[in-house]
Amino acid sequence: MSQQTPQSFPGAGIDKSSPLPYHFQLREIIRAEIASSRWQVGDQLPSEREFCETFNISRTTVREALDALVSEGLLTREKGLGTFVAAPKYMERWSGSVVGFSDSVSEQGYLMETEVLELSILPASHLVRQELYLQRDEKVFFLKRRRFIHKIPILLVISYLPQKHFPALDEIDFTNRSLYETLRQTYGLRIARVKRRIEAIAAGDDETNLLQVDPGFPLMYIENTAFNSSDIPIEHFQAWRRGDRARFEFEYRVSDELAHD
Amino acid sequence: MSQQTPQSFPGAGIDKSSPLPYHFQLREIIRAEIASSRWQVGDQLPSEREFCETFNISRTTVREALDALVSEGLLTREKGLGTFVAAPKYMERWSGSVVGFSDSVSEQGYLMETEVLELSILPASHLVRQELYLQRDEKVFFLKRRRFIHKIPILLVISYLPQKHFPALDEIDFTNRSLYETLRQTYGLRIARVKRRIEAIAAGDDETNLLQVDPGFPLMYIENTAFNSSDIPIEHFQAWRRGDRARFEFEYRVSDELAHD
Repeated sequence: MSQQTPQSFPGAGIDKSSPLPYHFQLREIIRAEIASSRWQVGDQLPSEREFCETFNISRTTVREALDALVSEGLLTREKGLGTFVAAPKYMERWSGSVVGFSDSVSEQGYLMETEVLELSILPASHLVRQELYLQRDEKVFFLKRRRFIHKIPILLVISYLPQKHFPALDEIDFTNRSLYETLRQTYGLRIARVKRRIEAIAAGDDETNLLQVDPGFPLMYIENTAFNSSDIPIEHFQAWRRGDRARFEFEYRVSDELAHD
Repeated sequence: MSQQTPQSFPGAGIDKSSPLPYHFQLREIIRAEIASSRWQVGDQLPSEREFCETFNISRTTVREALDALVSEGLLTREKGLGTFVAAPKYMERWSGSVVGFSDSVSEQGYLMETEVLELSILPASHLVRQELYLQRDEKVFFLKRRRFIHKIPILLVISYLPQKHFPALDEIDFTNRSLYETLRQTYGLRIARVKRRIEAIAAGDDETNLLQVDPGFPLMYIENTAFNSSDIPIEHFQAWRRGDRARFEFEYRVSDELAHD
């Protein structure tokens, strides 16, 4: 970790006549330093005292600003050492041409690894049958994987795939293969549409162990159903991601009707 | 709160020969009961003992399943009373025709209320200038609102709008008006595209107070920039939503190129 302590805040200052609280203004100043890369990952922040003196504000105000940025995952505190710029959240883009975790992550040059925790054949549960339009006696592949970025467990994902569509899927080793790439290359199945639900939840027992976080830690929970070009659901997944490491970005166009209402 | 305790689990059972852990299977069974509306909001769940006897599993297993569903927000525990089906997360649909919170929520028939915490004119911060393509001396409206569904504070949102586009915006009372509706009706500005970033974060001080949650509580954090039909950014917002109350759903089509790679 570098020990560089930036001393100046070019062009930044706290406007005492603004109705914005000082801690909020300081948060924005620090955010801008990081966004502009003047402060980089691992850089140590000035001490609380230095912040107080530079901006002529109270220590409570400084702490409030820093606490908020630590909660957000932008800064990290090392006991007895100080406050540092945290490793950035990896950004997953959800757009028209990228569907999977590995597509998105490898595009950004991250070191990604996968651990296959389980791959088996099971009777589909009620909910999975609903999502995948299956009959009561139909079976699914159950694929549970843990995925790492730069050795940190980021994502726990359980995929369900109808057995009838994917002969011998359970003989494939997904340690070094993307699931979606396999669906395309081995089974000739293309994903044409995905339906996603996202929530912020607190880590339960399984997630606590596998993602190495404390109970109650904020996670992003995603349920996804993927459809092929005939609009038949071919995969359903549940995914838990560490909130401090993941961020999603996407765009959408708004249809024209709104212009007239 | 109704005291109905459903006694039967039609068609559901724990498959002892399955490689799926029992607590996971039980979670799925309970999820299915709720999804099918056989168990409804406020219904009390069977006691741990009853679960043990019905499914012939240990109390530890039952607890693990219930704990996970409480973490997810599907169940809620009332001290000394038992475990109940929680009020559902409200679902916000992100689709081509719905852009705002009130559009989405009122569509679903929820009682929605808004409290305007602040509406003022400020110099734009560095980050806001970047998002809204503004010059250094340009000002923005700063609109901070708290929004309630059925009297529960769900969402804290800070919107930034360039002052030059919206004369006299600060004279409008947003307690009973949707911002996006106002942009359309009063200013003739239509939102054609939005760019969103989402993260799961832990509640800091401001959110703890305003959203009535404990410090560290999982929140969904969203940054959004909205563009008009000439692709000029007209609004940027930061929003914090209670993770236990909000859920987002959206779909997207995947472009054809993937079929060939």
